[in-house]
Amino acid sequence: MKKIAMLGTGLIGTFYTMTLMGMRNKDVVCVVAASREESARKFANQWNIPIWTSSIEKAINDPETDVVVIGLPNHLHKDAVLLAAKAGKPVLCTKPLGRNAREGLEMLEAVEKAGVFAGYLEDLVYTPKTIKALATVKAGALGKVLWARSRETHPGPHSDWFWNKELSGGGAIVDMGCHCVEIARNFIGKDIRPVEVICWADTQVHPINAEDSAVGLVRYENGAIGQFEVSWTFRGGMDLRDEVSGTEGTIWLNHWLRTGFEMFTSVGQGGYVAEKAEGDTGWLFPVGDEVHALGYAHMFQDMLDSLDAQKDPMETFYDGYVVNAIVDACYKSALSKKWEPVELSVWRGTENNETYLKAIDYDSQHQLIKEEKMPDGKTKIILKDKSTGEISQIFKD
Amino acid sequence: MKKIAMLGTGLIGTFYTMTLMGMRNKDVVCVVAASREESARKFANQWNIPIWTSSIEKAINDPETDVVVIGLPNHLHKDAVLLAAKAGKPVLCTKPLGRNAREGLEMLEAVEKAGVFAGYLEDLVYTPKTIKALATVKAGALGKVLWARSRETHPGPHSDWFWNKELSGGGAIVDMGCHCVEIARNFIGKDIRPVEVICWADTQVHPINAEDSAVGLVRYENGAIGQFEVSWTFRGGMDLRDEVSGTEGTIWLNHWLRTGFEMFTSVGQGGYVAEKAEGDTGWLFPVGDEVHALGYAHMFQDMLDSLDAQKDPMETFYDGYVVNAIVDACYKSALSKKWEPVELSVWRGTENNETYLKAIDYDSQHQLIKEEKMPDGKTKIILKDKSTGEISQIFKD
Amino acid sequence: MKKIAMLGTGLIGTFYTMTLMGMRNKDVVCVVAASREESARKFANQWNIPIWTSSIEKAINDPETDVVVIGLPNHLHKDAVLLAAKAGKPVLCTKPLGRNAREGLEMLEAVEKAGVFAGYLEDLVYTPKTIKALATVKAGALGKVLWARSRETHPGPHSDWFWNKELSGGGAIVDMGCHCVEIARNFIGKDIRPVEVICWADTQVHPINAEDSAVGLVRYENGAIGQFEVSWTFRGGMDLRDEVSGTEGTIWLNHWLRTGFEMFTSVGQGGYVAEKAEGDTGWLFPVGDEVHALGYAHMFQDMLDSLDAQKDPMETFYDGYVVNAIVDACYKSALSKKWEPVELSVWRGTENNETYLKAIDYDSQHQLIKEEKMPDGKTKIILKDKSTGEISQIFKD
Amino acid sequence: MKKIAMLGTGLIGTFYTMTLMGMRNKDVVCVVAASREESARKFANQWNIPIWTSSIEKAINDPETDVVVIGLPNHLHKDAVLLAAKAGKPVLCTKPLGRNAREGLEMLEAVEKAGVFAGYLEDLVYTPKTIKALATVKAGALGKVLWARSRETHPGPHSDWFWNKELSGGGAIVDMGCHCVEIARNFIGKDIRPVEVICWADTQVHPINAEDSAVGLVRYENGAIGQFEVSWTFRGGMDLRDEVSGTEGTIWLNHWLRTGFEMFTSVGQGGYVAEKAEGDTGWLFPVGDEVHALGYAHMFQDMLDSLDAQKDPMETFYDGYVVNAIVDACYKSALSKKWEPVELSVWRGTENNETYLKAIDYDSQHQLIKEEKMPDGKTKIILKDKSTGEISQIFKD
Repeated sequence: MKKIAMLGTGLIGTFYTMTLMGMRNKDVVCVVAASREESARKFANQWNIPIWTSSIEKAINDPETDVVVIGLPNHLHKDAVLLAAKAGKPVLCTKPLGRNAREGLEMLEAVEKAGVFAGYLEDLVYTPKTIKALATVKAGALGKVLWARSRETHPGPHSDWFWNKELSGGGAIVDMGCHCVEIARNFIGKDIRPVEVICWADTQVHPINAEDSAVGLVRYENGAIGQFEVSWTFRGGMDLRDEVSGTEGTIWLNHWLRTGFEMFTSVGQGGYVAEKAEGDTGWLFPVGDEVHALGYAHMFQDMLDSLDAQKDPMETFYDGYVVNAIVDACYKSALSKKWEPVELSVWRGTENNETYLKAIDYDSQHQLIKEEKMPDGKTKIILKDKSTGEISQIFKD
Repeated sequence: MKKIAMLGTGLIGTFYTMTLMGMRNKDVVCVVAASREESARKFANQWNIPIWTSSIEKAINDPETDVVVIGLPNHLHKDAVLLAAKAGKPVLCTKPLGRNAREGLEMLEAVEKAGVFAGYLEDLVYTPKTIKALATVKAGALGKVLWARSRETHPGPHSDWFWNKELSGGGAIVDMGCHCVEIARNFIGKDIRPVEVICWADTQVHPINAEDSAVGLVRYENGAIGQFEVSWTFRGGMDLRDEVSGTEGTIWLNHWLRTGFEMFTSVGQGGYVAEKAEGDTGWLFPVGDEVHALGYAHMFQDMLDSLDAQKDPMETFYDGYVVNAIVDACYKSALSKKWEPVELSVWRGTENNETYLKAIDYDSQHQLIKEEKMPDGKTKIILKDKSTGEISQIFKD
Repeated sequence: MKKIAMLGTGLIGTFYTMTLMGMRNKDVVCVVAASREESARKFANQWNIPIWTSSIEKAINDPETDVVVIGLPNHLHKDAVLLAAKAGKPVLCTKPLGRNAREGLEMLEAVEKAGVFAGYLEDLVYTPKTIKALATVKAGALGKVLWARSRETHPGPHSDWFWNKELSGGGAIVDMGCHCVEIARNFIGKDIRPVEVICWADTQVHPINAEDSAVGLVRYENGAIGQFEVSWTFRGGMDLRDEVSGTEGTIWLNHWLRTGFEMFTSVGQGGYVAEKAEGDTGWLFPVGDEVHALGYAHMFQDMLDSLDAQKDPMETFYDGYVVNAIVDACYKSALSKKWEPVELSVWRGTENNETYLKAIDYDSQHQLIKEEKMPDGKTKIILKDKSTGEISQIFKD
Repeated sequence: MKKIAMLGTGLIGTFYTMTLMGMRNKDVVCVVAASREESARKFANQWNIPIWTSSIEKAINDPETDVVVIGLPNHLHKDAVLLAAKAGKPVLCTKPLGRNAREGLEMLEAVEKAGVFAGYLEDLVYTPKTIKALATVKAGALGKVLWARSRETHPGPHSDWFWNKELSGGGAIVDMGCHCVEIARNFIGKDIRPVEVICWADTQVHPINAEDSAVGLVRYENGAIGQFEVSWTFRGGMDLRDEVSGTEGTIWLNHWLRTGFEMFTSVGQGGYVAEKAEGDTGWLFPVGDEVHALGYAHMFQDMLDSLDAQKDPMETFYDGYVVNAIVDACYKSALSKKWEPVELSVWRGTENNETYLKAIDYDSQHQLIKEEKMPDGKTKIILKDKSTGEISQIFKD
């Protein structure tokens, strides 16, 4: 059982608290902080939390607080982490870790120096589907991962500070690309170095300074590609999908709009349908248990179990820092209009990962390029002559 | 926090324990009973349960036991419930409640007489999708429910006793139809009396005495129809779907094979893919978190929260008894080849529910039958003359 | 090349003409008849048809007419067929053949006596998906077919006469059940005798005399079940699905609402979205090529190619008659509330089809009931003792 | 009715001939040419084509030939087109038009100089889904198109010459990217200038010189992005999807793997399942009518109807040239690792297309950034101060 101080009472603080207090959980949120005391008090009442405050510092230092959970706007992450480190308390910080790699690195160094347990609350890596998919990939079902696409798009975030580049650190890339980048990184392998990125970003619709749409490619040292697509201009709800291609298989995950819950209503139901849903009549696609589908439940389980066991959680501050570094490179590339290196002053993975190239001998003279069953029932085999490089084809019944 | 005695260590005992001990739950399984002591011991070791026994009675009466959970084969439910009632302990019993309504009623009367808390572990009513769908229906999004289809089919159950009619009480109907019947009943309304049933049942494939396939219709007093389809002959995994039609809307739930997790592998991954999956290469459809998707997590939450609050859970022994009575009528109908009444010696719902018939006045002379937008862009309106009954059509641009 | 007289200018006449005149077809509609001359003239103008008339007889007997296509309301089918037979001209009649088996038989006998080519325009058996699925089933991919469900539901038909029981012969069963019954019959095998039916039918919503909802089961001599579900009360568009289960496989076809075309629009597009679509904003599910998806294109190809080749088309008047007989039995069962025999005074299939029961020897002592891979990776095998009938289980790694 | 000379007897020649001779078409293939006379003769026999030859020139100049259809490997397109132009005969050329823009331009100029009708056989723009989707977009249902993703991936092409960079002009980009680029261009608007591209390309798996995987972004003058993803390394069949995002809506098209035909078979069926299918047991996803789903039927209809009407088809040689120019820029970008301009020496669209930016006044002081319904039922509104640029939020019930 852990006693938690929740910093922040917005949508993310609500989802986190809903998760931690939901079901038959043994953990409790016993302190809550919000910038406005009134918000903290209301939230405390709603969730039956005994202590509320408008001081982040007080919340962290409250003797009741075992673990600090940061659900604050991006520009407040760093200071809150530093305070927790100073207080010597375990700290879990929502995504993105910093607004940039410099902030991320400072936070990483602070917790490591202080020796406090730290977890990076990257929930989408913890959805039950992603966890099972990652296990499947580790078990070899996809062979070598070649490409991982992660997509998060919706009509735009729900709070003002997201739209303010100074407070958030950017636009859709730092807000949602941080998820996508880390999802792809998990599938490709966290020990493989992300080498360089190319990124398109634009403000297509909203009257803001930050990008509301972006697509990026992250090239890993072993030749694998992590592709992200983010947008605050998408219409139809929240599109949250991952696709992974490997030499031996494929995985497609749909976390939100097509999960086996389909509904038509001519009259609506009043109220909330699902996060980022648009409209409440016609065909709708609700999600059964949102905090579970978004990974919050398994994320906190891993975090608190890891804390109990005194081992690293699946997502650490180091991961948050790597993500920040990749995002930084994306912003650079969007401006320079060329591939930009990912600058990692600290690299803890392996080096010199080789690319994959399949070279199966068909016979002593030829390599096999491909086999395909044709409409007439025959099998066509494409071969490459090992000495001349010439490509030819033969048929088998 | 509750201390639980788990009776039974088969698949259902495993799923229940996995749920109760999973995540950051505050409850614990502290006693386990299996018919063979060796099984109990192994299970206790695996799940770190301090007390094991081959005696159901001992498990129930163990002073550590707060709550009795029955995950035993069907023929052992009644005696276990009677023992728990005698011991004055809260009891949760897996589905079906009895092998027939006579057993179900005896169990209902026993717990009520003893005044113990009792819950009917009908998990599929508690899947996150079903819970949200039921709330949606209650909020009026579907208007009046007219028809609810629930389907559960797979290649057959995993333990020998299921296939033995004497031990289980029947075949696919009692095994899976009990789920489907209660799902439909929840959508249509538990206070609406199920009046009569028609049922086809057959042994199509397996060399057994019980039915391995069945389809049934349950007619409710208000004219709504609950349709179930069950089979132990289905190929391709476990088909677990619900469909609900109302006057204003439609709900389709897919709990297993199409939930947004799609995967192709040419090599497989070794080991388990998903419950009742067939094969481990090609296109596969895993489920992220099986115990969650099957409703176990929310079911135990409701049961134990209700116990804490001293109120009835969503699914009670009375519900189990009604389901038993409906299933009994199905077996009768399968033999008699005609509609058979549902015999409920105890009825706790409302009486004299009227059927629905829409009679919207189009004008003083006509009722509206329907409107449709045609390919040429016009709207066709079908009307019924209120005095003559004559049907006519007009066009609007 | 065939010159066609189109009888009827309603939705079905439009779809048929669109199909016959669409693409780069060599056939032409050169005569059109409608009850009101004005409608015929308009239709002729629209489709560039040289001859129009309000007389069915004139259209049939016009020297330009090679082939008669009947797209008329149900009560006019019989007379039109008799006129075509009398004229000695090939005739294609839309579904249902008659309003009942008596009419159907009279039409069958008329064309056979006259020796004219006759085709039953049961389009849904000809959808490209159904054609391929039927070929797949014939190739053995599903083993023996055990069950076929066909479902057609929408918010109600578009023309007044459908809602008039005298003109149409009934309600949703005769209108749409005729499709479903024939689809299931094709999957199960046309040479297998449909023995008996059980059917529920009700007027749940619309103020009419006929049924607006029904579910029926048709039992075939070999134990297979054809299940149909029809409704004029469905909300959300047109639900057109088939599901087939065999001993070795499964087929699921979705012809309308989920075919890989998904669209969200907040503003709509003006005009027609898809047949029976409700609303034109929000999530919509259009169909690319409706006449193709509904089977019209392949239906006319088969009909006219068969006429050219002087061989029976896939769907004959005999098939239409069998469908009428099954539908008649359904209406009888809905009233009698018990299984009713399918009365076929003419039976052209095989006799004494045996039911299927799998009895695979596991060893000399046991039959195999089932194998399943369990979560712990072991395989559980359920066996039946051949002499005692006792059921047991063993585990294999 | 048109008499067609088919050049090429490989998979594409087969699909084309199947389409032109399929259904009740009035057109006929009356001449066929293949590089080996034996192949031409066999093909002629199979399809009942009266004239066969190993000379492309003879086929074109045969007096029977009304229209020349080029279904040859890429390196033979140009010469065949020049011969057709010289012969003054209408010519339809398969995709890509040239191996590069230089070839494409030469072909374009040749047919224009000769004044012959010319069509670019870009079938995937003609799938029934794409045609309807394009009409929907033109009708305004998506508002302004911001992004269009087109993806075509499969395990690799079926003929040797595809894998030979000299003969084909490249790898997966020139083979499949040409489809994707033109699909996106149709959605975004053919009159909008494609300005620049960024492209990643790699040889990830197969032992060849060309790229087997690529992702590219094409930026249009109005700010819209066309994104393509191509691969010859995909596992699981043929992934053929388009996604379009506009300011008011979204379209998702799945042309192959998820079109409403799902099938499980434990035994297979022998033979061909679908183009590029892998394996023939387990869950399979066949396509009902492949040539229709791939757009061949509607493509030839448009081509031959346009020829009859003496008007431009939907896809012209100019379109083929633009696609070649975009593909050329992609190859350049893949090497230079930066955005490269699309060089179009001939531009026939509009100039100076402005980008889209939404600036809706909320009140005199503020612009509306976004509205969202929150879980608590309230609506949150994000605003931007028109003078200060400050971003704020307010709540409405």
